[in-house]
Amino acid sequence: MQVDRIFNFNPGPAALPLPVLEEIKASFLNYAGSGMSVIEISHRSSEFEAIINDAVTRVRRLLVLDDSWRVLFIQGGASTQFSMIPMNLLGDGDTADYVNTGTWSTKAIKEARLLDKSVEVPASSEDRNYCYIPKSIKFNPDAVYAHITTNNTIKGTQWAKLPDTGGVPLVADMSSDILSRPLDMEKFGLIYAGAQKNIGAAGVCLVLIHQKMLDRVPDLLPSMLRYTTFASKNSLYNTPPSFAIYTVQLVLKWIEETVGGLEQMERMNRQKADLLYGFMDRGDFYRSTADADSRSMMNVTFRLPDESLEAMFIKQASENGLGGLKGHRSVGGCRASIYNPTPPEAVEALVEFMKDFEKRAG
Amino acid sequence: MQVDRIFNFNPGPAALPLPVLEEIKASFLNYAGSGMSVIEISHRSSEFEAIINDAVTRVRRLLVLDDSWRVLFIQGGASTQFSMIPMNLLGDGDTADYVNTGTWSTKAIKEARLLDKSVEVPASSEDRNYCYIPKSIKFNPDAVYAHITTNNTIKGTQWAKLPDTGGVPLVADMSSDILSRPLDMEKFGLIYAGAQKNIGAAGVCLVLIHQKMLDRVPDLLPSMLRYTTFASKNSLYNTPPSFAIYTVQLVLKWIEETVGGLEQMERMNRQKADLLYGFMDRGDFYRSTADADSRSMMNVTFRLPDESLEAMFIKQASENGLGGLKGHRSVGGCRASIYNPTPPEAVEALVEFMKDFEKRAG
Repeated sequence: MQVDRIFNFNPGPAALPLPVLEEIKASFLNYAGSGMSVIEISHRSSEFEAIINDAVTRVRRLLVLDDSWRVLFIQGGASTQFSMIPMNLLGDGDTADYVNTGTWSTKAIKEARLLDKSVEVPASSEDRNYCYIPKSIKFNPDAVYAHITTNNTIKGTQWAKLPDTGGVPLVADMSSDILSRPLDMEKFGLIYAGAQKNIGAAGVCLVLIHQKMLDRVPDLLPSMLRYTTFASKNSLYNTPPSFAIYTVQLVLKWIEETVGGLEQMERMNRQKADLLYGFMDRGDFYRSTADADSRSMMNVTFRLPDESLEAMFIKQASENGLGGLKGHRSVGGCRASIYNPTPPEAVEALVEFMKDFEKRAG
Repeated sequence: MQVDRIFNFNPGPAALPLPVLEEIKASFLNYAGSGMSVIEISHRSSEFEAIINDAVTRVRRLLVLDDSWRVLFIQGGASTQFSMIPMNLLGDGDTADYVNTGTWSTKAIKEARLLDKSVEVPASSEDRNYCYIPKSIKFNPDAVYAHITTNNTIKGTQWAKLPDTGGVPLVADMSSDILSRPLDMEKFGLIYAGAQKNIGAAGVCLVLIHQKMLDRVPDLLPSMLRYTTFASKNSLYNTPPSFAIYTVQLVLKWIEETVGGLEQMERMNRQKADLLYGFMDRGDFYRSTADADSRSMMNVTFRLPDESLEAMFIKQASENGLGGLKGHRSVGGCRASIYNPTPPEAVEALVEFMKDFEKRAG
């Protein structure tokens, strides 16, 4: 760590790999010998085509996508996808299943219903304040898709294993765990993820869509809300969020070339999470809020004995160069977001601080 | 100019002020003493609130907006606004006028009609390939709004003076001349502009909306397509494109503090355009494609005696550090985009090169 940088546990926008930031900085006034900043080059230039094509190729390679998959970059975040998905995939008489595991699932359901689409909720963990991932769900075999939120940033839960939908394609919001581990793509019809947690800067949403879903898109939607517009133009129908896509390209390159791929990425993420949960489980000063089998590798949510200790913990951590540890405003408590780019040293430093804080306050 | 940078005449994404790029670069690993990059800070942090609030305040000050105006930052570019505007402003039985001055107006009309909205076209310059801005237009007094594209990047035309709509509020796509000159805000109901030409990096669209338009927004639209969602949350309903907004903030600061405001900005833009048009008008080697009274201060489109000379001109200009001079692929020819950030020296260098090229080739 450079002396003037902190360990950043923000939930998103979040920490990015230091080598990525350094590369952006070094070439910021003159990208790839163009004599222009990367934010000054045309999206129709060979330089930008190389950026977006490299990003697409790396996603395809990391997730082992076959030709029936398209890789799209769309603006508006996951929140825009909450509407685009039902708008594009559900026609008259169609229905979809949505599993409700917290705030973001709830919003996805609400937006689909706002469009007057038929949406069923075969399972929810609302009964215990979303602290677990539902099991043994009975999905509707006639649903066009089954929607899940693979990781829940606010409640700190994550699907350890994908549900058995009986063949209904999964549509998944992976904004907070995209490319954190390998995926069995056979199970999916569409995956979407705001970039600003695991794979880049805010301002772009990665969408992976299978041809069978693309075939469902109606013609009469607004151009910018139609997946086919993006698929037919390599996400360059209009000016794309070029800088955000550039950051994604660089993080993907870092995952492939520095980390070594998704198996290694998962191992690293698991080690970080195990270190933190393992430490907390050895005592009762820090209490993990999620059920043990539903714990997130990405967002470790926890409570201290009381709220004044939590406030002191967050404040002192910040004074010690550990930032972003406050829980979401809707739930309180503490949260350490430890996405792909978070280095193991950050988690080690956090555990050391937690030990020390407990000794002083416990 | 730093020796390794070119003069950049790209149509967008386009040149940005060098001091802005240098400031981004200098603080890129540690923004405002936060110990984080500006792309790593939370959009709920005090640092980012300061950025977005400063951007809003500067827009309000530069355009002298009263409290009935809201300043919004929305993703998806002007292309998304083509749909959002009719979706939000036109109810059953409502109608709007759209003046057709080229590619972007045509797309705006198409997207409104895709939504089955009632749209009339009281004037078009299609008869002469969009080389002029229509005059003495008879607007429908019952229209909810009258839509214009204030500057046409592809054909190099610009409204020198706003049309008299008889009190119907203007809705204007100002993607390519926003904040290039002062505006009489009394005439407008809504203004929108992708940032990547005059005021920042790609990935954000500035939307100015008057309360009387905001009052028309229906409740049942998807949240991310409803202006009220952005207005009620200071554009922070979901994660915004924070880096793009940051670039806008810095360019607005540059317009206010370095250029000295919109009167000075207009004077500088006019001088650059006059230099270029004035030079071309003195001979017949370079022919401006727009009618004299409709010429754009932002995009100077021109032809040479033949296409092989044009190709040679673009190639040699590029070899001499003058980039982005190729006309839009739909029309060919040459185009120098000279938005707010383009320094006078760039235009002077271009004119010198043009003189020299004519001498050698003419």
